[in-house]
Amino acid sequence: MNGRGGYRELIKLTSFYPDLASRSRSATTQTHTMSCLLRSTCVARRTTVTTTATTPATTPNWAHGPIRGPPLARRALSTTRAMQIETVDFGERSYPIYIGQNILDDDQSLLRKHITGKTALIVTNETIAPLYLERCKSAIEADGTIKVEVVKLPDGEQYKTVDVLSMIWDKALECRMDRRTTFVALGGGVVGDMTGFAAASYQRGVNFVQVPTTVMAQVDSSVGGKTGVNHPLGKNMIGAFYQPQCVLIDTDSLNSLPDRELASGISEIIKYGLIRDAELFVWLEENIDRLLERDPKAFTYAIQRSCWNKAEVVAADEKEGGVRATLNLGHTFGHAIEAASGYGTWLHGEAVGTGIIMASDMSRRLGWITEELDQRVQDLIRRSRLPVVPPKEMTVDEFKSYMAVDKKVQDGTIRLILLKGALGECVITGEYDPQALEDTLAHFCGSAVGRTMQDEVCAEDPSADECRVYED
Amino acid sequence: MNGRGGYRELIKLTSFYPDLASRSRSATTQTHTMSCLLRSTCVARRTTVTTTATTPATTPNWAHGPIRGPPLARRALSTTRAMQIETVDFGERSYPIYIGQNILDDDQSLLRKHITGKTALIVTNETIAPLYLERCKSAIEADGTIKVEVVKLPDGEQYKTVDVLSMIWDKALECRMDRRTTFVALGGGVVGDMTGFAAASYQRGVNFVQVPTTVMAQVDSSVGGKTGVNHPLGKNMIGAFYQPQCVLIDTDSLNSLPDRELASGISEIIKYGLIRDAELFVWLEENIDRLLERDPKAFTYAIQRSCWNKAEVVAADEKEGGVRATLNLGHTFGHAIEAASGYGTWLHGEAVGTGIIMASDMSRRLGWITEELDQRVQDLIRRSRLPVVPPKEMTVDEFKSYMAVDKKVQDGTIRLILLKGALGECVITGEYDPQALEDTLAHFCGSAVGRTMQDEVCAEDPSADECRVYED
Repeated sequence: MNGRGGYRELIKLTSFYPDLASRSRSATTQTHTMSCLLRSTCVARRTTVTTTATTPATTPNWAHGPIRGPPLARRALSTTRAMQIETVDFGERSYPIYIGQNILDDDQSLLRKHITGKTALIVTNETIAPLYLERCKSAIEADGTIKVEVVKLPDGEQYKTVDVLSMIWDKALECRMDRRTTFVALGGGVVGDMTGFAAASYQRGVNFVQVPTTVMAQVDSSVGGKTGVNHPLGKNMIGAFYQPQCVLIDTDSLNSLPDRELASGISEIIKYGLIRDAELFVWLEENIDRLLERDPKAFTYAIQRSCWNKAEVVAADEKEGGVRATLNLGHTFGHAIEAASGYGTWLHGEAVGTGIIMASDMSRRLGWITEELDQRVQDLIRRSRLPVVPPKEMTVDEFKSYMAVDKKVQDGTIRLILLKGALGECVITGEYDPQALEDTLAHFCGSAVGRTMQDEVCAEDPSADECRVYED
Repeated sequence: MNGRGGYRELIKLTSFYPDLASRSRSATTQTHTMSCLLRSTCVARRTTVTTTATTPATTPNWAHGPIRGPPLARRALSTTRAMQIETVDFGERSYPIYIGQNILDDDQSLLRKHITGKTALIVTNETIAPLYLERCKSAIEADGTIKVEVVKLPDGEQYKTVDVLSMIWDKALECRMDRRTTFVALGGGVVGDMTGFAAASYQRGVNFVQVPTTVMAQVDSSVGGKTGVNHPLGKNMIGAFYQPQCVLIDTDSLNSLPDRELASGISEIIKYGLIRDAELFVWLEENIDRLLERDPKAFTYAIQRSCWNKAEVVAADEKEGGVRATLNLGHTFGHAIEAASGYGTWLHGEAVGTGIIMASDMSRRLGWITEELDQRVQDLIRRSRLPVVPPKEMTVDEFKSYMAVDKKVQDGTIRLILLKGALGECVITGEYDPQALEDTLAHFCGSAVGRTMQDEVCAEDPSADECRVYED
């Protein structure tokens, strides 16, 4: 046990949110990840058990429809564990997601046991390095059998480029790292995506491990194997589907996260609520303030629930042939904002937040969701301190131009994830009235209507975040 | 039928080398690719048939041992077909290799039927474009449903870099090519490797097709899905395992190949003979002059036999966990030569030729093969007009430095493919007397022995290719 906490501290995390768990379907056979906290050898495994919930068995009145989304098995969250383990099921390539407090360098050597070979390369950035690098390095070097090298990238989405990616390859080759080495991604989504692609392509593929340190990376980007870099003409256009050996989420790392980064990650949690998990959306409506206040129990719950959603979707559709595309709700609009405003100006999750509002607006115009649901989406994004309108200077044509190179485009048709039906239901489709898209873009960009939502927001409160922060 | 030949001309290729086929094991059940020449829809398929050979059933006296190599099923070559089809068996990802004369744009639309989506990007180089680009483009555009774009890379191994690779990504994005597009590699090994990696990483993976135009690419690099680019510190260090939709080998393209390129490819054919196909090695000893004279029947046989060997090995071990590494005979030495002398100075196959001689020399020093076999290897490489010694300026230390970053290195041990036993038998191992490696390097580099093989060769004939061409 060291001064930064460890094994025993994990127990503090037990028994959060029994109220929510009890709302799950009762006495039903569900897939369940067993805790291994008290076992000497900790191996993630899943087993099918019968879970009996206490109250109530009926659908609660806050559910606007059955949880549908993709046709995947659902299961109750365990609420009696300290360290949570989710499993991403890819057959022989399955891997665990560890979620807990201070597990980066606890005495279970979680990280160490997923390093193969005799060398490891930690990839991090200049911001994260002073905070966690030494702990991460020590955890891997603890038994003296692994030689660790480090490469520090500049921090920011604007550095998610092929040129910066080369720094990882260069370092690995300079250190003569062989095919059995393991790359360790220590940082947020940018570090994770770049390290993953570097690992996928170094000597045609070496092992890698994800140690995400931001909400965005912990709830979304570190799970599922999407890796890559940006191109001036489009986001994440160069990359690979490549799965890690494990994902290790130390929730304590959120304590060092700037407010803007924190809010950015919340947009992806909201996304899961909208595309497949109505329960989670309602929970967010009730608990968003606790997340913004960094309540550790609330965050651990939100992270686990998000990872569980993500793991189910990507296991069903690794290479985005179908249902996985629903994870892109708001991203087609969001990627256009990121690319047009220059990568790094908007955080990814900020752009996704506005993108979700735009997708919801278009869904309402199509008559696919109620005005009430559209309003709930707007309200939750706004309460999450995320921007709700795109940059003032963006035009309809700019949006269309960037959306036309989206990865979901098929033979010229822009396919979008849109909300349709009750809360938690969505579709991926290229079959929509194009006028609805035109109207949404015009409304948000203000090129065709007299008064835009942005005008309205800023007229009402010129000091609002969305008027102040994103004008440059 | 057009002026460049086509369907009927294919029939000219029938019935070559019945003498060799008759040497195969008789009346044995073997996997066999059916010809589909005369069918209206041509689909590659394999079926198990009983082949009865006429003479002789016993092992011929020229075979120095049983064909062993990896424990894979072997089969007789069909000698009654015009267009040959081999299949690379990867389950759902299996793909055909078409081999024939003038099949690039014949009326079977072989190429067209493997293009998915509504766009294709032909990647070629400045040398190949004037020769085959228009034919290739016309073949794809024939029915008017596919829009074709082209990117021309500079020609040469020295351009197999990340920077030049970006030209492919840039072009695809500028043309707004979507995930359903198909990249077509029209050229030699460099074009094929780069196009394959560009396809593997563009939007995390799009389809691609190989149309190899050099011996090197036709007998080796276009089959099996190894893609990538070089790094200043090592050959093919950045890349992916990524399989094409088909390989289309038009043997007529060899007519335009420079002599040096032709010889370069022969080294890989020799390699198959040494690692697993004694029959092929003996055939090469008897027919090397016909290959150098570009006898089309001899070449078609050598290409098919090579593809058959390659397809069997890579199907058994796609990601080089074991037996596939044997395809690297001579490559560890060869890659060091290429990197040290500057990519593009030596052709890849030239470096492999010298590398095979060095591997054979080391095998003899270890007592693993006879002096006679070592001599036969040297003789065949020399008769193939390939260099038999590394560049004069290369030192033992340089060799070791480059060999240390080879992809087969494991935890600091340089693993090598070495000959062991009879003709056609080899091992991949890190367990050898290191003195043998020292002695081989010293002998070929001349840093520790008074008189090197290079000295000997050049003293005997200062105008020999190996003294003239590779000194700069």
